[in-house]
Amino acid sequence: MEALSEVSQVKKVNGGSVVSPKGFYAGGVHAGLRYSRKDVGLIYSEVPASSAAVYTLNQFQAAPLKVTQHSIQEKGKLQAVIVNSACANACTGERGLQDAYSMRKLTADKLNLEETFVAVASTGVIGEYLQMDRIAAGITDIQFGQTQEDAEGFQTAILTTDTCMKSSCYTTEIDGMLVTMGGAAKGSGMIHPNMATMLGFITCDAAISPESLKKALKSVTDKSFNQITVDGDTSTNDMVLVMANGKAGNEELHEGHKDWEAFLELLKNTSQDLAKQIARDGEGATKLIEVSVKGAASNDDARKIAKQIVGSNLVKTAIFGADANWGRIIGAIGQAGVEVNVDTVDIKLGETTMLLNSVPQVFSEDDAKKYLENDTIHIFVDLQFGDGEGKAWGCDLSYDYVKINASYRT
Amino acid sequence: MEALSEVSQVKKVNGGSVVSPKGFYAGGVHAGLRYSRKDVGLIYSEVPASSAAVYTLNQFQAAPLKVTQHSIQEKGKLQAVIVNSACANACTGERGLQDAYSMRKLTADKLNLEETFVAVASTGVIGEYLQMDRIAAGITDIQFGQTQEDAEGFQTAILTTDTCMKSSCYTTEIDGMLVTMGGAAKGSGMIHPNMATMLGFITCDAAISPESLKKALKSVTDKSFNQITVDGDTSTNDMVLVMANGKAGNEELHEGHKDWEAFLELLKNTSQDLAKQIARDGEGATKLIEVSVKGAASNDDARKIAKQIVGSNLVKTAIFGADANWGRIIGAIGQAGVEVNVDTVDIKLGETTMLLNSVPQVFSEDDAKKYLENDTIHIFVDLQFGDGEGKAWGCDLSYDYVKINASYRT
Repeated sequence: MEALSEVSQVKKVNGGSVVSPKGFYAGGVHAGLRYSRKDVGLIYSEVPASSAAVYTLNQFQAAPLKVTQHSIQEKGKLQAVIVNSACANACTGERGLQDAYSMRKLTADKLNLEETFVAVASTGVIGEYLQMDRIAAGITDIQFGQTQEDAEGFQTAILTTDTCMKSSCYTTEIDGMLVTMGGAAKGSGMIHPNMATMLGFITCDAAISPESLKKALKSVTDKSFNQITVDGDTSTNDMVLVMANGKAGNEELHEGHKDWEAFLELLKNTSQDLAKQIARDGEGATKLIEVSVKGAASNDDARKIAKQIVGSNLVKTAIFGADANWGRIIGAIGQAGVEVNVDTVDIKLGETTMLLNSVPQVFSEDDAKKYLENDTIHIFVDLQFGDGEGKAWGCDLSYDYVKINASYRT
Repeated sequence: MEALSEVSQVKKVNGGSVVSPKGFYAGGVHAGLRYSRKDVGLIYSEVPASSAAVYTLNQFQAAPLKVTQHSIQEKGKLQAVIVNSACANACTGERGLQDAYSMRKLTADKLNLEETFVAVASTGVIGEYLQMDRIAAGITDIQFGQTQEDAEGFQTAILTTDTCMKSSCYTTEIDGMLVTMGGAAKGSGMIHPNMATMLGFITCDAAISPESLKKALKSVTDKSFNQITVDGDTSTNDMVLVMANGKAGNEELHEGHKDWEAFLELLKNTSQDLAKQIARDGEGATKLIEVSVKGAASNDDARKIAKQIVGSNLVKTAIFGADANWGRIIGAIGQAGVEVNVDTVDIKLGETTMLLNSVPQVFSEDDAKKYLENDTIHIFVDLQFGDGEGKAWGCDLSYDYVKINASYRT
C-alpha cells in the first residue's frame, strides 16, 4: 500500500462499502441467471453524480460497455448502474446491443430517470444472449437500501468464479469536509492489464466535475487496476466506474484545488485495495504476490517489469510450490522489453537477498521456503539503473486454476 | 506442416537425425551433472561447417551464448558443438564466462581444433556454477559416432524436463545432388517467442556460405521456433544453431541460386518438425495445439494472433478440459495488439464452425467435446481483413504443468 499512511488525511474504514458515501444505495437480487446466487445488482445515487469510467482495451468490447460509454458521453453524469453476472453479453452483435439498451431503459423506468443517467455492466460467458425476461423481472424485483446487507447484495450479484466479495472504503478531508469513497469489485480469472475481466464500482460523495474525475481515474488506474494480473488474459467486458455525487459539500475539485492530491490518494487507496483483493482471489490462488521494482529508468518501466514478474507462469508456479527459484525472476526481468543493466540487479524475496549486483548470494533454502509459505509474498527488485518505481500484484498458479478453467462452462 | 508436400523435392526421412547428413558425428555421456541420465553431448563435423545461430532475446544472455557468438563471429565456421544439461551457466558472472570458455577449450583440445571452431550450449538451473571437474571428465570420456545410438546419446544428453527426445530429418535435391538435413532439440518449459529455453541443433551437408545460412535461418525461425509457446516465459540460454559442411557436393547456395527456395523449404521442414515436437512435449502437455490464422492485414499480424491464442492460459486450460469455449479465443484475438474487423471473424475448431462473421453458431457440444479429446487440436481463424497468414503451436495447460514447475529445483 506504499507509504499512504504518511498522507495523514486518508483513513481506511473497516466494513465500509459503496453505500458508505452519502446519498448512495445498493442492492442485489436472484433473477434466475444463476442457479441460486444473486445475479443482478444495482447502485443508485439520490442525485446525478459526476461519472467517469475506464474500459477494456480488448478490441471486442461487449455491448454493455458501449451503452455505458453512450450514457457517460451525454452529460458526464449517472444516477444508477445496473449489473448482471452469468452472461457477458459479448460477441452478441446487434441483438446484444439492443438487450443492453433494454437493461438501461428498464432500470431508468423503474427509477424514473433519464436513460442516459444509467450505466450497464455484464460479466460471465461470452457469446450467449441475455435471458431478457429474467433480467426484466430481476430489475422489477430488485430492492435497494443503505445497510451492510444491501451492499453485500450488490457485491454478491456481480461475482462469477470469485470466492469472496471485494469491497473497500476510505475517507479524507477536503475543504474541511469529510469525504467518503466506497468500492466494490469482481474478477478472478482473465485478469491482466487494462481492465481485464474485472468490474470495479466506486462511489464517492465528493463534488468534482466529470472531466476532473476522468483525469483522476486515469492516473490512478495505471497504479492499481492495471497493475494486477492473474493469467495474462484480458476480457471483452470489463470496466471501472466512478460516481461522485457532491453530497459531502466540498468545493468542486479540480487539478488546481489544494486538496487535489488528497483526492487522488483517496482514489488510489480505494482502487489499490480492491485491486489487491482481486489479485488475492485469483482463480485457484493460495497467495497474494506483491512485486516492488525500483531503480528503473522510469516509473513506466518499473511497472512493466513488476507486472512481467508477477505475470510469469514460472514465477507463479514456483511460489505456489514455495520454491525460491529466483532465476525465473531474472528471466522475467530480461524479457520485459525494458532496458536494464544486466550487471547491477538486486533481488530480495521478503528480507532475503538472492541476487546482489547480479551475483547469486548464498541463502538458507529452508528460511526461503518458510517465507514462501506465507499468504502474502513480497518480491523486491532494485535495478540500480534510474529513479523509476512501481508495483504490481498477482497470485500463484495452482492446480485449482487449471481445475476451474478446464471446466468453466460445464 | 502446411502444403509442403507440394514442394516435391523435400522428403521426410523417418528415423533420421543429426548424423544423417554426410560427415557428421554425435554422442552423449553421463558426466555426473544429473543422477543417472546422460548430460554432456557433442556434435562433430569432419570438416569446418558454415554456421549460423539465433539467440534468446532475453537481456540476461547466459555465458555459453556469448562464447558461441564469439566463435561464430570469428570465421562463420564451426566443427563441433559441446552441450551440457542440468546447469544453465546463466547469471554466473565472470566465473561463468570463464567456465564456458574452458568447455570450449577442453573440446577443441580433445578434437584438435581451433577453439573458435567450437560452440558451447548449456541448459538447466539458472544461477549455479558448472561443476567443471565433471564437465572436463565428461568431455574426455565422450565417444561419438554415426549410428542411431550415437545420435540418441546426444539427443538424450541435452534434455531437462522433456519427456522424450526430439529429432527430425529431411532431404532435397540441390544441383541434382542429394542434400540431407538433420536436427535435434530440447525444450519443454519456459518456451515462448524468440528462443525461449530451447536448444536446437541442425546439421546439413549442403554447401552454403555463413552469410546465406544466417539469412535462411533468420527467415525460417520466424515461421517455426519463434511460433511455439508453452508458458510465455523466455529463457536466458537458448539458441538454434545450424551447421552446413558442404559434403553433399552442390554448388554453394545463395539467394540467387535456383534451388534457394528448396533449401529454405528443407530448413523450414526440419525446424517446424522440431518446433512441433517441442510444443507437444510442453511441460505437462496432453495435446498439441496448432492455430492457423488467415485474412490478417499481414503475415506478421497473423502470426502474432496465432501465438496470442495458443499462448492464452484460458484457451490452454479449456482445451485441457475439452471445453469448446471459443469466447476465450475471441478474447485472445482482441488483445493481440493487431488491428482486426470485429464484425468479420470466423472461428473453427477442427471442422466445426463456432463463429461466422462474428456471429455465434449453433453447434453440437458433444461433437466439439469429442474433437477436443484428440491429441492434436486445430484452431482455424479467418479474420477476413487481408491476405496475411500464419501459424503457431503450443500445448494445453494441465495439472502436471503446475506440478512440474512448483518443484523444479527440489
